[in-house]
Amino acid sequence: MIILGIDPGLATLGWGVIESDRGRQRLIEYGCILTTPKERFPERLKKISDDMSDLVARFQPDEIAFEELFFAKNVTTALTVGAARGVSIAVCARHTDQLYEYTPMQVKQAVVGYGRAEKKQVQQMVKMLLHMEEIAKPDDAADAIAIALTHAATGPSKVQFAMK
Amino acid sequence: MIILGIDPGLATLGWGVIESDRGRQRLIEYGCILTTPKERFPERLKKISDDMSDLVARFQPDEIAFEELFFAKNVTTALTVGAARGVSIAVCARHTDQLYEYTPMQVKQAVVGYGRAEKKQVQQMVKMLLHMEEIAKPDDAADAIAIALTHAATGPSKVQFAMK
Repeated sequence: MIILGIDPGLATLGWGVIESDRGRQRLIEYGCILTTPKERFPERLKKISDDMSDLVARFQPDEIAFEELFFAKNVTTALTVGAARGVSIAVCARHTDQLYEYTPMQVKQAVVGYGRAEKKQVQQMVKMLLHMEEIAKPDDAADAIAIALTHAATGPSKVQFAMK
Repeated sequence: MIILGIDPGLATLGWGVIESDRGRQRLIEYGCILTTPKERFPERLKKISDDMSDLVARFQPDEIAFEELFFAKNVTTALTVGAARGVSIAVCARHTDQLYEYTPMQVKQAVVGYGRAEKKQVQQMVKMLLHMEEIAKPDDAADAIAIALTHAATGPSKVQFAMK
């Protein structure tokens, strides 16, 4: 099964693709969708939409896991991060209804075994579990791989998006 | 020139289409895209994306004006409203780069002539200016028409989306 993990953001949207087969996980590819404040807001959202469509078409993920956001510095940040996340979710929803979300704490718990683990520990575990030579860069891509691993590890208690 | 006005929201996204020709405005159609908490969040965003695509394909707007959001009750609301707004902006950005935004105060100023006007006064003016028999319902649709009218009235000082 191919799992796409997504750590959404407006300037940097991290993504990671893994294959999960009978308890074994293999890294396929990871990266970031980048936009800059030099582009207008609609252009940035269009780029996220287009690039996400390409990703989904290219890797044909069976299931897609997002970081659950319920926190932002302030309302203004929440509006723009929410927009980037919304655009990527809408693109994925066109591809499959197998969409899931996990809180940062669930990711830490699943990958490190401790819900309050440091970001660095998560990145180290991701590297080890997937036999990577280096820690994935940037952080958003490493986070996205961790989200995909969390989904692979979660088994039957997988968390579909809530009604809201 | 065909102008589409949009008042974005997750449960109710209001839209209004007007034709503006040498200082005269004519109402073409208005309505709402509705989603309910009985659907999962990704389904709701997908519906907004699909219905917005249909709207844009059907009315072929030359220019599109959004309500500018910088306020929300709290971060959680901002994340979901931001998502709905982001999805509709991304769809519109695929159709045209003529995208604009106006604050509620700019809309009141343009339509009523007073930036602190009541919502009811705006709705009455929309009805009068467009020779409508009744006030547009629901409020979100009336607001969307007011945003389109604001854009038509703004002339050369039209406000493109900011870089951000």
